[in-house]
Amino acid sequence: MEQKFYSVIIAGGKGTRFWPLSRSLRPKQLLKLFGPKSLVDETADRVLSMSGSDQTLIVTVAEQLDALRKELRALPRGNFLAEPEAKNTAPCIGLAALEVMNRDPNAVMIILPADHWVADVAGFRRTLRAAAKLAVRYDHLVTIGIQPGYPETGYGYIVKGKALDGGTQSGAYEVKRFKEKPIPKIARQLIRQGSLWNAGIFAWKASTLLALMQRYQPAIHHGLAVIGKAGNGKSLANPSRKLRTVISREYKKMPSISIDHAVLEKAGSEGKVVTLEANFGWSDVGSWAAVHRMSSRDAAGNAGNGKWLGLGAKNCFIHAPDRLVVLLGMQDAIVVDTPDALLVGDLKRSQEVRELVDELNKQGYGSYTVK
Amino acid sequence: MEQKFYSVIIAGGKGTRFWPLSRSLRPKQLLKLFGPKSLVDETADRVLSMSGSDQTLIVTVAEQLDALRKELRALPRGNFLAEPEAKNTAPCIGLAALEVMNRDPNAVMIILPADHWVADVAGFRRTLRAAAKLAVRYDHLVTIGIQPGYPETGYGYIVKGKALDGGTQSGAYEVKRFKEKPIPKIARQLIRQGSLWNAGIFAWKASTLLALMQRYQPAIHHGLAVIGKAGNGKSLANPSRKLRTVISREYKKMPSISIDHAVLEKAGSEGKVVTLEANFGWSDVGSWAAVHRMSSRDAAGNAGNGKWLGLGAKNCFIHAPDRLVVLLGMQDAIVVDTPDALLVGDLKRSQEVRELVDELNKQGYGSYTVK
Repeated sequence: MEQKFYSVIIAGGKGTRFWPLSRSLRPKQLLKLFGPKSLVDETADRVLSMSGSDQTLIVTVAEQLDALRKELRALPRGNFLAEPEAKNTAPCIGLAALEVMNRDPNAVMIILPADHWVADVAGFRRTLRAAAKLAVRYDHLVTIGIQPGYPETGYGYIVKGKALDGGTQSGAYEVKRFKEKPIPKIARQLIRQGSLWNAGIFAWKASTLLALMQRYQPAIHHGLAVIGKAGNGKSLANPSRKLRTVISREYKKMPSISIDHAVLEKAGSEGKVVTLEANFGWSDVGSWAAVHRMSSRDAAGNAGNGKWLGLGAKNCFIHAPDRLVVLLGMQDAIVVDTPDALLVGDLKRSQEVRELVDELNKQGYGSYTVK
Repeated sequence: MEQKFYSVIIAGGKGTRFWPLSRSLRPKQLLKLFGPKSLVDETADRVLSMSGSDQTLIVTVAEQLDALRKELRALPRGNFLAEPEAKNTAPCIGLAALEVMNRDPNAVMIILPADHWVADVAGFRRTLRAAAKLAVRYDHLVTIGIQPGYPETGYGYIVKGKALDGGTQSGAYEVKRFKEKPIPKIARQLIRQGSLWNAGIFAWKASTLLALMQRYQPAIHHGLAVIGKAGNGKSLANPSRKLRTVISREYKKMPSISIDHAVLEKAGSEGKVVTLEANFGWSDVGSWAAVHRMSSRDAAGNAGNGKWLGLGAKNCFIHAPDRLVVLLGMQDAIVVDTPDALLVGDLKRSQEVRELVDELNKQGYGSYTVK
């Protein structure tokens, strides 16, 4: 029998890596980087046929709530959870687990970042269904491991342990350990060893996650328990003013920590994490260079959208929704045109856009990083 | 005694080398490339104190007349001559000579392109005064020869002959011959021989020029004679409808030819051209690279105007009057931002902007090259 599950889309990211297109009030998940739909809309589309609109939840921060509800009209208003403040992914996923437990104490939840790119949607869905089954069978944390395409240094890696279920057949393995963003030499080594990219896509029973949170993150778990008690079985979406006050108060006390550091790494070292190997064409879309890589390019390697013309341009990315952009003999350049700001950058330095936004804020251009 | 003269500013150029800032209806001379004033306004400023507003004439094409009158409010409306169509510089300068002759048959006229850059205005004025005197003393054509700063291949060169007036003292020389845009090797040779850049700035008596036109360009001279007869001593600025019809008709029949080919080269080979050596810091501002070279640059070699920020940028030129332009690690790039079009180009290829405009017209983007 098919394992039913909740899809929990984490949509609280900030707008720093895709400046000037992204801003703090127009974050990456709301951008239309690959077509007519925003990344979060594409993410919801990928899971809706599996979990249904009732069991598809969005967790975001309060300031993005309205924009996301507007963006995802197919979802009931009661499926949007708003964090009072961003505290990285552990409290966010904990809050979602609480909501899922409220609705169904035995439910499996699948955690999906809102802003990733997937090539093979059918393969992606097969993987998620298999992950949900694994999460029930082993009562462990399941993390999707992507077969690496190249030694990316911006990703985390999963070092596989013993094969489960006959191994190579099912693609399920024990997780030996996690390795965060490695230097190039180590990345190449990890690939030779058959390690996988940690996609940040997870499957587990809400009850399993909460139990492990209690063990590894008692402060977060305590806050969640207080919130759960105050909620008294009611949904955490559209909370009463009183409940909202409790959530805000408890959130303030929680540490800001990722689910990886908070739970997965610790559970992994105790043999409680399973990885499911997959190869559905995936990227976390971490920079303009990644968008360029994932876009269809012309013979000279240029990609873009809108009205642009490259005369002797090679391997460039152009975002030109409104005005005509003409490139005269450029190579490896990004041009991102917005109504009030323009970025012209070296494609190979697109990882530095985040620091660039910090610099803009420092130099008095903060109004250009908000909306 | 100081030699009085007319200043004739030739302002008929098109907007192809500075796209997207320049357009056919917003040509180079109207651009503010180095400060708050347009190039033609700066040119007028340089000569007004010498020739006075009454003796400063503008020659332009009909479609630019209104824009230029608006730009140069210090000049009387009766000092703007409009060509019915562009026919290169010979007919244009002939028309101006006719007007000057009408006003004063003995007058000296100094021809100045509207869109050049001059560093040392006092030196420029000294040179022009000396050129006007020379034009009277020798009754020849006087051309200003600039001491070359480097072997530019985009300029014409003047090969000096015998020194006049004690030579090195006065800086006056016979012209041996003209050499158009040389290849680099020849340019270096010319510089070693002491040849000069032909700045396109000339001084001569209107009567001298017209006499030589009659000799070398009878077709143009005939047209001018018909126009002069129809005008019957009246100014060619603000012509009656009838006179305008005559000008249009005669212009149609004239060849499109530069004053250099039409008169100067021929007169030079007959020993009738004198050059006055000068060194007042000059450029014909032929490309975005030239603007970059003439602008004040920061420690990394970047220059620009408006609101821009270079993070790791080197040797770039940025025109950003309205929006914030951010450069992330670019080198030798031009960024020119306008309300409807944006150019991002390799500074070393800025000579190709003219061809780029042709390409835009060909590819259906003609609306972006007009205004």
